[in-house]
Amino acid sequence: MTQKKKNWQERLHEIIYEADTKAGKRFDVILLWLILFSIALVMLESVKELDAKYHTFFNVSEWIITILFTIEYIARIISVKEPSKYIFSFYGIIDLLSTIPKYISIIFGGAHALVALRALRLLRVFRILKLVRFIGESEKLAKALKASRHKILVFILAVFIICLIIGTFMYLIEGDESGFTSIPKSVYWAIVTLTTVGYGDIAPQTALGQMLASVVMILGYGIIAIPTGIVTAEFTKQTGQKIDINTQSCPNCTIGYHKDNAKYCYSCGSSLEK
Amino acid sequence: MTQKKKNWQERLHEIIYEADTKAGKRFDVILLWLILFSIALVMLESVKELDAKYHTFFNVSEWIITILFTIEYIARIISVKEPSKYIFSFYGIIDLLSTIPKYISIIFGGAHALVALRALRLLRVFRILKLVRFIGESEKLAKALKASRHKILVFILAVFIICLIIGTFMYLIEGDESGFTSIPKSVYWAIVTLTTVGYGDIAPQTALGQMLASVVMILGYGIIAIPTGIVTAEFTKQTGQKIDINTQSCPNCTIGYHKDNAKYCYSCGSSLEK
Amino acid sequence: MTQKKKNWQERLHEIIYEADTKAGKRFDVILLWLILFSIALVMLESVKELDAKYHTFFNVSEWIITILFTIEYIARIISVKEPSKYIFSFYGIIDLLSTIPKYISIIFGGAHALVALRALRLLRVFRILKLVRFIGESEKLAKALKASRHKILVFILAVFIICLIIGTFMYLIEGDESGFTSIPKSVYWAIVTLTTVGYGDIAPQTALGQMLASVVMILGYGIIAIPTGIVTAEFTKQTGQKIDINTQSCPNCTIGYHKDNAKYCYSCGSSLEK
Amino acid sequence: MTQKKKNWQERLHEIIYEADTKAGKRFDVILLWLILFSIALVMLESVKELDAKYHTFFNVSEWIITILFTIEYIARIISVKEPSKYIFSFYGIIDLLSTIPKYISIIFGGAHALVALRALRLLRVFRILKLVRFIGESEKLAKALKASRHKILVFILAVFIICLIIGTFMYLIEGDESGFTSIPKSVYWAIVTLTTVGYGDIAPQTALGQMLASVVMILGYGIIAIPTGIVTAEFTKQTGQKIDINTQSCPNCTIGYHKDNAKYCYSCGSSLEK
Repeated sequence: MTQKKKNWQERLHEIIYEADTKAGKRFDVILLWLILFSIALVMLESVKELDAKYHTFFNVSEWIITILFTIEYIARIISVKEPSKYIFSFYGIIDLLSTIPKYISIIFGGAHALVALRALRLLRVFRILKLVRFIGESEKLAKALKASRHKILVFILAVFIICLIIGTFMYLIEGDESGFTSIPKSVYWAIVTLTTVGYGDIAPQTALGQMLASVVMILGYGIIAIPTGIVTAEFTKQTGQKIDINTQSCPNCTIGYHKDNAKYCYSCGSSLEK
Repeated sequence: MTQKKKNWQERLHEIIYEADTKAGKRFDVILLWLILFSIALVMLESVKELDAKYHTFFNVSEWIITILFTIEYIARIISVKEPSKYIFSFYGIIDLLSTIPKYISIIFGGAHALVALRALRLLRVFRILKLVRFIGESEKLAKALKASRHKILVFILAVFIICLIIGTFMYLIEGDESGFTSIPKSVYWAIVTLTTVGYGDIAPQTALGQMLASVVMILGYGIIAIPTGIVTAEFTKQTGQKIDINTQSCPNCTIGYHKDNAKYCYSCGSSLEK
Repeated sequence: MTQKKKNWQERLHEIIYEADTKAGKRFDVILLWLILFSIALVMLESVKELDAKYHTFFNVSEWIITILFTIEYIARIISVKEPSKYIFSFYGIIDLLSTIPKYISIIFGGAHALVALRALRLLRVFRILKLVRFIGESEKLAKALKASRHKILVFILAVFIICLIIGTFMYLIEGDESGFTSIPKSVYWAIVTLTTVGYGDIAPQTALGQMLASVVMILGYGIIAIPTGIVTAEFTKQTGQKIDINTQSCPNCTIGYHKDNAKYCYSCGSSLEK
Repeated sequence: MTQKKKNWQERLHEIIYEADTKAGKRFDVILLWLILFSIALVMLESVKELDAKYHTFFNVSEWIITILFTIEYIARIISVKEPSKYIFSFYGIIDLLSTIPKYISIIFGGAHALVALRALRLLRVFRILKLVRFIGESEKLAKALKASRHKILVFILAVFIICLIIGTFMYLIEGDESGFTSIPKSVYWAIVTLTTVGYGDIAPQTALGQMLASVVMILGYGIIAIPTGIVTAEFTKQTGQKIDINTQSCPNCTIGYHKDNAKYCYSCGSSLEK
């Protein structure tokens, strides 16, 4: 009987985690549509006019989806060999977070809105569609971002300190009338301006304030070049490497990454040609 | 007679589709001005004050242009060998779409506004002016964009998911008073903010909301580097490859990376030509 | 006497057009301050409260500056050999445009505001300061922009056509209540949104309008990568060239732009070394 | 006794300026938290509602921090050999500026707000955390910015002149009703628009004004490519140079462009080492 149970577990694992079999593919497609439907539901539900009209429909649909997600979550746990590995994985936590808010909402009404967290489940789309090429691309992207994360952190810290200082000065220059009622609000304005968002809910009114604001804007307009420069240089390096360097490996020492026109291995000096 | 008709068809084809003959050039120039005039017309017509004053002039001009476009459309169909090929081509569909709304407007008044679709005809400008160099440039551009479309899609999907999640949080944090009345509206706000557009029609009012908004802005300010990095790396690769150095190797010493106009090997001095 | 006059003319030319002599340097510095003062004047004059208070001072100063600029203009004409060459040069036209409005304002009061055109005189700053390095840099910049002008034109045309089409759709979707009262206004909104400026004076109110607006914003956020990619690729190429290619010229055929490690001229095959 | 005093001074120097000893590390961590706390304090203090409630707490905390910073400042002076070198160093001036406003505020109440200048002390974070890698990255960044500072200055000057001219034109086109009440205000608007900030507090109302504004926006959207291009090209050069290829030439065939870790010439196979 253990044998039989194991078989059943393995079959479930194949359906849920893999997409090679017909059943596995069907499961993935259904799950994908379910996720999209559940997100659409939570968004429409938040529109008051629609909620007033179709409240019962929304509520019932929510419960159906929550139960289906619960079943999926349990199935995922019982079909893996090490359940704890799934539970504490990135996707495991997202799956849990997108399922429990509805249950919590029985006790705390406000928690219901948290169902929107299931938007995170969209990330599973990449997995489901087995978009190898897409993943490949995004991994390259992630690699470039990772390589430049120190520079970007330095940049963000610098931006934040600039906003802090400018915000303070604006608080001193502009009075309460223009909306600069406190330093945190002025810092908020500085961020809004430096990032070129520019809501306009707070805007300088005095001549001096507008001069400082102009400096902030030109600064913001200019320093956007820095993160762009960082990431682009990283990308260019990664993209450029391919042209010069090939993946041919030396028949003698198996070292790779030779220049395209190399005839001898740069590491051991033996010929690269047969 | 078939012979004669064929000649007539061929002559028409030459005038409409080519620009080598004098008549062909004249046709292209007239068509270009007609397109520009028709677009100006539809724009001015939408200005209520002008429409009230010159309604008859606008209406008559519209009909004249529509009839001229209809004649051109029919002429294009009868002068090609395979009419269906033109009809279902990109330009064929645009030509149809920019002609029929006026006819439909006889029955449905509202459809009239769709004449603005003829703005798409502007794309023909490229064809008419036979801007070979321009087309060449835009083809390079299109190639670079095509090569990076997977990365860009991953990026847009990620941006959209970020906006979804942030929008939901803002909906929970900010009340109805600030304009965050529903999740779709909050997501709309998140997009407005992340893309640094910043209308200001919806803006956070609470301290927590403004803090989250600041994070979104700095995020948006930073991640604009990603599409730029992707496209630039692609461009740099394409621009760099072609122009300077080729992969031709010296017949004497087999060294490569010669300048495109090199006649002698820069390493051993022997001729690169056979 | 002709000899004497020529000398006087030549001396004047040296003072005005060159900066090698002490008098020439002093003239340049005075002119620079005069330009800056004149621009400050015209700006402050436009502030109503200041104009009400110091109208006489502003008016007198304006006349003094105008007369000084007139003297300079005449001096420039008489001190060059071919006056017409100066008059129709870029700087000649700017000098004229920044001098005459005050005279015209005697007859037409409104023309007075045009004195602000003298802001263009600031461009002379580059000349005056003899910022060789700066000019060198800006010439490199201009070269890169010139090389990519076809691509940029294609891009701007495409952006404009996109704005035209989107503007039309928004005009059809949103009613007059949101501010989309005519197609030109809707196109204006599309430009405001696509370029991520986002004034907020016109903003979509309907759900469909906000969805389309979101698409426009993400589009605008993404396609900013294109001009950046174009210019950066051009810059990288120009900056990169220096590393690979030097300005050494072949002793045999005088051709330049050899690779840094070239031993033989790529054009004539003779040795580059002595 | 001089010996003893010297020892005491040296020990203090070690604690304050270095982070090798246990006491030194502890000092740095405490200082870091003190700086963060002092900045949080000054920000919260500026929020009127909080200040009304907790005024005494804020005032007392401020005085405690000011006294601690004063002690630190004095300790830094007496523990270095050349106090003047520290006092007039970048960090020395910041330390002073972030300490004295509270003392001045006894006499001038308004000066109190200047305590916010201590945000600058955050820069010390880099020092304290001994983030060698971070500093390394930011030095590379600073180097790239330094190398391109001439180009950027030319760019900013050009942007400012463009804004001056456009601002003047808008002042002439738009009347007082739209908010373009003076040339400085119009120039401010031009900067707000060109940098794609777009507050919307001043926005063109006439058709001609909106057309000019559209041109400014597209211009601003396009020329952001220039600083980005400049910085990116500089980054690419710096990042690219170091990592892949060096200019070492083969002692046998003199060919260059070897990989940094190459031991044999890729062209002739002879050893690259002596």
